[in-house]
Order: sequence, then C-alpha cells, then structure tokens
Amino acid sequence: MGMAAPVRPTAALDLSADVVAITQAICDVPSVSGDEGHLADLVVEALADAGHLEVIRDGDTVIARTNLGRDRRVVIAGHLDTVPINGNVPTRFADEDGRRVLWGRGTVDMKAGVAVQLKLARELADPVVDVTWMWYDHEEVAADLNGLGRVLRTRPDLFHADFAILGEPTRGEVEGGCNGTLRVDLRATGRRAHSARSWVGENAIHKLAPALERLAAHGAETVRVDGLDYREGLNAVFVTGGVAGNVIPDDAVLTLNYRFAPSRSVAEATERVRAMFPEYEVEVTDAAEGARPGLDDALAQEFVRAVGAEARPKYGWTDVARFSALGIPAVNFGPGDPLLAHADDERVDCDQIVACERALRDWLTGAER
Amino acid sequence: MGMAAPVRPTAALDLSADVVAITQAICDVPSVSGDEGHLADLVVEALADAGHLEVIRDGDTVIARTNLGRDRRVVIAGHLDTVPINGNVPTRFADEDGRRVLWGRGTVDMKAGVAVQLKLARELADPVVDVTWMWYDHEEVAADLNGLGRVLRTRPDLFHADFAILGEPTRGEVEGGCNGTLRVDLRATGRRAHSARSWVGENAIHKLAPALERLAAHGAETVRVDGLDYREGLNAVFVTGGVAGNVIPDDAVLTLNYRFAPSRSVAEATERVRAMFPEYEVEVTDAAEGARPGLDDALAQEFVRAVGAEARPKYGWTDVARFSALGIPAVNFGPGDPLLAHADDERVDCDQIVACERALRDWLTGAER
Repeated sequence: MGMAAPVRPTAALDLSADVVAITQAICDVPSVSGDEGHLADLVVEALADAGHLEVIRDGDTVIARTNLGRDRRVVIAGHLDTVPINGNVPTRFADEDGRRVLWGRGTVDMKAGVAVQLKLARELADPVVDVTWMWYDHEEVAADLNGLGRVLRTRPDLFHADFAILGEPTRGEVEGGCNGTLRVDLRATGRRAHSARSWVGENAIHKLAPALERLAAHGAETVRVDGLDYREGLNAVFVTGGVAGNVIPDDAVLTLNYRFAPSRSVAEATERVRAMFPEYEVEVTDAAEGARPGLDDALAQEFVRAVGAEARPKYGWTDVARFSALGIPAVNFGPGDPLLAHADDERVDCDQIVACERALRDWLTGAER
Repeated sequence: MGMAAPVRPTAALDLSADVVAITQAICDVPSVSGDEGHLADLVVEALADAGHLEVIRDGDTVIARTNLGRDRRVVIAGHLDTVPINGNVPTRFADEDGRRVLWGRGTVDMKAGVAVQLKLARELADPVVDVTWMWYDHEEVAADLNGLGRVLRTRPDLFHADFAILGEPTRGEVEGGCNGTLRVDLRATGRRAHSARSWVGENAIHKLAPALERLAAHGAETVRVDGLDYREGLNAVFVTGGVAGNVIPDDAVLTLNYRFAPSRSVAEATERVRAMFPEYEVEVTDAAEGARPGLDDALAQEFVRAVGAEARPKYGWTDVARFSALGIPAVNFGPGDPLLAHADDERVDCDQIVACERALRDWLTGAER
C-alpha cells in the first residue's frame, strides 16, 4: 500500500458567496508563481456545472467562454499567481479609518480582481457580449513563463476578441494601455594605468559624466496618446566600474531604464536613446512594447462610460500590451491600489471590490447605471 | 627518530661574486611575501664572518650595521620579498637590442637593488659614514605586515639616522620622496521608487553627475616641493549603485583615489577633497602620508652629486615615507625600470646593476667620480 499524498485542506470554492468572501477564500489558497495548480483545480471545479461555459485547461491556465453568437466578444483576464508570501497569508480583515479592508498577499495583485471575474463568469449565463474569461499562471515572473503568452502560442484561436479587460488593480478606475520599457547598457571605455601615474591612462568612469548630466537634466516627458497623458521616465538604474583601488578604470557601464509612451515602438525608443548618447556603446538588454490605450474604440468607450470613471493612463507594464500587439483594444480595471501591490502591507478596500463587481456586472448585462 | 625537514637545495650566498651573479642567485631563491625565511637565513649566513657588522635578525628582517663612530649615519634598505612568481623563476639572461638583461621575478622589484646592498655591506669595512643596512620582509602586501614597520615598533633605536636610501627601482636615478595617497567614498543618496513612476523617487546615480564632471575637468596638478615637481592625480577608481532594473536607486558611491604632493598632509588632502565635493558624504577609507624629497639636506645633496644623476620625483608610494615621517630625508635609488615592476616580463639591464653598485660604492668610500 502506498502512502497517501499530502492533501491541502481547502474546501471547494463557493462562487455563490459574496465577492469579498470569494476574494478571501482564493487569497488563502497560496499560489505563488509556479504553484498555481491547486487554485486552478478549484477554479475548474467551481465552474464545472456552469452549462453556459466552455471550460479549457492549459497547464495552470483556465479559460472559460460563452458561445452565444453575440456579434462582439470580450476577453476578461486575470492572473492566478502572486509574488512570494511574507507572513501575510492567511488574510485578515481590519478597519482602516472606518473602512473595511482585507489584508494579505494577493488581495491587491490581483485576487480581488479574479474574484470579481470568477463570480460573474459563474453567474452571468446571458451577457450582452460573448465573454472569454482567462485566469492564467506565471505573471509575476520572467516573461517567457507567462501563461497568457503560452496559450497565445498554443491556442491563438482563443484570442479572437474585440476588446480586452485585465483585472489588474486600478482602484476601480479604467487605466488604458501602458508605457513600454527598454533597458540598455551604456558603456564607456578607457585605458588602464596605475593611479600614481593617472595621466598615462584614460578614466572610463569619468567619461560617464556627460551621460549622467544629460539624465539629470532630462525631465520626464508627457506624451498624449489617444486622449490620455503618458508620463515617461528615463533613468539610470545601475552603475558599475572599477578594477582596483590603485588602477585607472578602463571600463564603466551605466544601465538605463526608459519607460516610453505607447505611441513609440521599442525601435523608436531605442533610436531615441542612441541619439541622446551618441558617444557611448549602447546595448539593448531588455525591451517590451507599450500598449496604446485604444480608447477611441467604440466598445472601450462604452465600457468607460458604463464604469462611470474617468480613464487614466497606466504607467507600469501589464499584459494589456499582449492584446494591444494583437490589435485588440485593452484596458486595466480592478479593485486595489497599485502602489500596494507586492508590498508587505498589501490590502484592499472591500467596498472597492464590491463596486468593481457591480460595474462590470452592469456593463455585461447592459443595465443602466 | 623524527623525519628530516625538507631542505631547499640552495648553495650558500657568495657575496664575493659580481653583483649581477648575486642578483641572479637571490632571484632564484623564491621569497614571495610571507616566504622570505630561507633568503633571510642565507643573508645572515653570508654576513656572519664580516667582523665590521653587527647583525640583528627580527623575524625575517635582517639588519647589519657598522659602529665606526662616524658623525653621520645612513640607513640603506631594501625588501626581500617579491610579488607572486608567474613562471618567471628561475631567471635567465637574454640579449635585448645588444644589452644584456636578466629576466625574471624580482629582478626589478627589487633584488638587483638588494644585491648591490649586500655586496657593499659585506665588502665595505670602512665607509665614510656609519651605515645601517636593512633587508626586510612583507613589503608587497598589506601595510600592517611590513617588516620595516614592525621593526620600527619593536626597535625604534635602529632607526636613528641622518639620511636614508631605499633601493627601489629608479633606473639608477635618484628619486626623492613620494606622493601621498588618499582613498575616499563619495556617497549620493536619493529615494527609491518604481521606475515606471520615476518622478516619485530621487535618483542617487544621477546625483553623481556633478562629481564626475568636476573629476573629468580636473587636470592633474603639478606641485613643486623642495625643488622637485610632483604631479598629482585625482581619479574615480570605483563606482557602484543600483537596486534592481525597475527601481530608482536611492544610493550611489564613487570611490576616489587622490595621489597628492608631499607638501600636503593627509588631513590637508582630505580637506581639499571635501571642499571640492561639498554636496556629498565623504568617507576616508585609506590614507598614507607622502614624503618630502628632503633634497635640501646636505647629505642628500652630496649623494645626488656623487651619483651624478638629476634628482626626480617618485610618484608611487614607497617606504621612504616611513623615514620622512621620522624626519629623516630619504630617497629611492636602485637599478631597474619601475614600470616593469610586478610585470610578467620583469627584467633588469645588467649594466644598470653594475653602475648602481659603483655609484653607491664611490659615495660610501668618498671616492671622486
């Protein structure tokens, strides 16, 4: 007789509970990137008897879609994984200036958003648009592991849609698109010499002076894209150089991170950086396209109107860029303050979760607000 | 019966041989810092029957002095250790553009100088000044291990002298004094933020710009001290900063090495650096006083005249600074090109060894040149 495998003592997920209770339930199932399997199991199980949904499992990504023959289809997606837990699971409720908050890992990024989606997926058998719900793995780690990226490679057909909503935390507002990001190494070279005879050498660290001057003088530019103002940022994030305490260094490297407006491509952003630092070797080490907000699209405008909030730009890079790259307008919309994402004091305002659920439900059911 | 300890197959040192042969013999006794014992044994043994010398052993330092009641006493010193061997022992002779050279570790730094000293110590029973010969250990490693420094602590009486000559390589010229050296960390601080919202933070790396500008613009100053021109150097030798590829850094450190003329003290040099970089935290991590050339001293002037070469400044820090700190004028004088010290192709011109021996012999015996 073999030994029984250890079983996690998690009850089935009850999607008829209120959305705050669902948030707590799924936060209390740890799902740090790479360990999403059990939560994905619970999601599949909770949707199994929803006759209006076609449920597809791909690794630890769960996709559930309606096939009602609507003339428009919307993807609504959220990631199941979190950054590592730091003593902040299980979650707990607290009172903060008279508001009820749920404390703990994942409450903001982004299980409150996932809870809203799960509840509506289970309950809305007859939405006004066809919906493809996607809950995916490995968002918080290296981009090549991302579950959304994987499914896009293996099942591109699942990505046919007219509009996409990601449940990333936006305080319940609509944040459109996102800036792109570029990382480059600027390298200065010189000639080694003993520092007692420094005039024989050529100091590579000193040669970084003009680059740092330009960076210090460069204000973050603001670029208007599809009606939203994207603030850029061009910053040194690393600097390194030096051989020994008595040697004139022949090599110094400054690593820059350029967060650029989604009206620019990676190629344009790279060209901009090269033009700004013509005297250095420039090596691109990492880049991701931004995403235009796509708020000139009729469906997107309807959604913004329905939610009743002003649309804003998203600064951080999110998976909306994947949809944008496919030509699908995409926005972020979810409960939680993005500044608390990954923080040890991560916590979400419970009213915000409820408000997000109501707004999304109203839009999907065509209710007047 | 115990086992015999391994014996190094080195013949006794014959100080009646010519000085080039002595150089080769002592280069072929490896004496990397920490391993000078056997060479020190050979030195003691070779001087044992020299009735005109009082020989003192302190660790692996050997001191031999005349006690002739002369009204002036000169210290003549050299270190026995070398930097690590790199396939360049045993030594070999070669022809270089028609000149005979001895190749190998220690030939320049500084066993040719030591060979000159050993031969003269053994032979000159009646010099015109009293001489304290010092051959010491641990010069090429951390300053607190230096044999000269150790003996200065345990036997300060041995350092009573009117003048000192160190046999460090100077191409047979007289190099007076040496620059001081100061190492400081300049620190800039800021405020961390996600690089997607860089305007919330304060970039510490960017704040290094003015320091690097000033360094790049700062030419190496030349300061005349006791008739010699000392060229200074103020350089960044290390730079470091950065937290993560998507974080505005809150801390950046630039390490400077200031090689300063011996007319300035460490305190003055430090004050100069602080005044030049008032907006940074400045932390001194390492410092050594320079040494004035002392060439206004009568004995020093006599020596320079006798050697028949123009005196020059020494840029690198040497143990002459220890004598200078005691108020004893001190110069460097020895065979070998200092730029070849520590190099894998370290080699010395044999004629230079012979010329140095002759010059020092002439001066010590009062011969006219």
